[in-house]
Amino acid sequence: MTHEIAVIPGDGIGQEVTPAAIEVLEALDIDFEFVEADAGDAVKEATGEALPEETYELAASADATLFGAAGETAADVILPLRDAVGSFVNIRPAKAYPGIDAVRPETDLVFLRENTEGVYSGHEDRLTDDVSTLTRVVTESASRELAEFACDYVDTDDHDGFTIVHKANVMRETDGLFRDTVAEVADEHGVETDEVLMDAFATHVCLDPEQFDVVVCPNLAGDVLSDLAAGLVGGLGLLPSANVGTERALFEPVHGTAPDIAGEGVANPAAAIISAAMMVEYLGYEEEAAAINDAVEATLEEGPRTADLGGDASTDDVTDAIVDRL
Amino acid sequence: MTHEIAVIPGDGIGQEVTPAAIEVLEALDIDFEFVEADAGDAVKEATGEALPEETYELAASADATLFGAAGETAADVILPLRDAVGSFVNIRPAKAYPGIDAVRPETDLVFLRENTEGVYSGHEDRLTDDVSTLTRVVTESASRELAEFACDYVDTDDHDGFTIVHKANVMRETDGLFRDTVAEVADEHGVETDEVLMDAFATHVCLDPEQFDVVVCPNLAGDVLSDLAAGLVGGLGLLPSANVGTERALFEPVHGTAPDIAGEGVANPAAAIISAAMMVEYLGYEEEAAAINDAVEATLEEGPRTADLGGDASTDDVTDAIVDRL
Ligand SMILES: CC(C)[C@H](C(=O)O)[C@@H](O)C(=O)O
Ligand SMILES: CC(C)[C@H](C(=O)O)[C@@H](O)C(=O)O
Repeated sequence: MTHEIAVIPGDGIGQEVTPAAIEVLEALDIDFEFVEADAGDAVKEATGEALPEETYELAASADATLFGAAGETAADVILPLRDAVGSFVNIRPAKAYPGIDAVRPETDLVFLRENTEGVYSGHEDRLTDDVSTLTRVVTESASRELAEFACDYVDTDDHDGFTIVHKANVMRETDGLFRDTVAEVADEHGVETDEVLMDAFATHVCLDPEQFDVVVCPNLAGDVLSDLAAGLVGGLGLLPSANVGTERALFEPVHGTAPDIAGEGVANPAAAIISAAMMVEYLGYEEEAAAINDAVEATLEEGPRTADLGGDASTDDVTDAIVDRL
Repeated sequence: MTHEIAVIPGDGIGQEVTPAAIEVLEALDIDFEFVEADAGDAVKEATGEALPEETYELAASADATLFGAAGETAADVILPLRDAVGSFVNIRPAKAYPGIDAVRPETDLVFLRENTEGVYSGHEDRLTDDVSTLTRVVTESASRELAEFACDYVDTDDHDGFTIVHKANVMRETDGLFRDTVAEVADEHGVETDEVLMDAFATHVCLDPEQFDVVVCPNLAGDVLSDLAAGLVGGLGLLPSANVGTERALFEPVHGTAPDIAGEGVANPAAAIISAAMMVEYLGYEEEAAAINDAVEATLEEGPRTADLGGDASTDDVTDAIVDRL
């Protein structure tokens, strides 16, 4: 069976780390067909559009998409692409990797972020010169779909349950609906949950990250709190993410375009490669995914290393070392 | 001149640390008239109302209010009280104190949080069984008032400018209006600003808190990011806050009711006392405010200490030591 993979390198180091991920995927005994497409600042400059229609269509029809990074146009690219793959959940693991200097090395979290609504629903108005509004949408159906996924996730991946993060003491109706729905679904599945307010989570995850494990939260809370966790594990550099829908999914490193080093061939490809491993697992190849992760971890620990980790290896050197260890 | 101070101890250790703050204030050569009123879980249980009308009226007419803490009813108490004093800005310093084990001891930040609108504006609806909405409001006038305050603050307190935190790449109209207005006002005043996205701030404040100083942000961002900073300095335990309006203001420790130790006389009164120092400064007595802060810092460093800081002193012991050092 051939898997059609949309490949959207985007801008900056996206152009370097995405080919590195492809190189690793090509070393596996899996039948991929890679189809490349444009998105981001460069294509906007050339054509006026950050996300060409054919790129959207490709992501909407491929079995999975690998995305690199986008610059100024990030929101114009990634939000429609999440929609193209029908993603309802953004999976963001945040754990410290060997070789990384971390504020809280014991952090090992997975955020399951609602990926369609909240303040991201896109309804804003300028009512008067003085007054602007945004309509934050929370639906029972999206909360339920996320919760079903979360229950399945903790079962399959062997976690003890999950923490619901919300701000229902202020957003009583909307986050109240989110919290109640997620808790109810978990209850139906016999999955244990606890809950914590978004602001309290921010304090407590710094003081004692080990008290949390899987965290289920609305869209903006997931955005901010997973980036907070990224700070605790030493930065965005090594973190992968998955935007999962019912029929397809998009995988992207959490880091950006790194304009300071783009074009020099020295970017760390690890996050893009770990994101590709998430894709391999999503497509059903668990052993191959584990093999990639092991090869990346061994390389992080034993080298070669790129400059961000204190080494002087190139993107190619690191990629070759990972392929050799497969 | 007599200053009428509304005193609202609230629940839990609010009942212990608020009298401690009063004791310190009474040791100063300033003419205060303290008027006590109820709010919180206990009065709700007794009367059905977490915030009795007379408490609201008292806060709305007193020169300043000292608030302790509230339990389950916190939102029902503190949000209307912020309104009662006409507060448009919530000032939240977050710096590490001597004697506190901090994840990031070099953190020294002041958050100036918009205190009236954003997702706190209170407009929510359940449109259908499935769909709930919240109308997030951002006005140019509130953004401008906050920005004028911020410019004044950095001038008076001798800071190099401030950082605007927002999420205008997603909330383009609302946070766009916030960002543009605040930047424009700063420009009019010759105050330097830079800006950073809310999620990026969460990462970078963990990695390198010293790159930030004064942070100006919308309501929920201020709530979550100041609690994050509290985590970096070792918890909510010692942090004060001020809710400032044009004619009056309310001062409160950031910590909660601490039900596990409430009633035992062992709560740390430092945050309530530092909050009282902010009030003293607000009322125009800079030297007296500095004297309180110095006495608190000396006591944190040299003892006596309450159990949260590894000591075995009582609330009274610590309060007496602070008064002795004035
Ligand atoms: C670029 C931006 C729209 C995006 C988001 O807010 O979701 C990014 O921060 C992320 O988390 O992937
Ligand atoms: C109790 C709650 C409504 C409040 C807020 O969200 O503002 C609290 O978290 C705070 O920051 O003072």
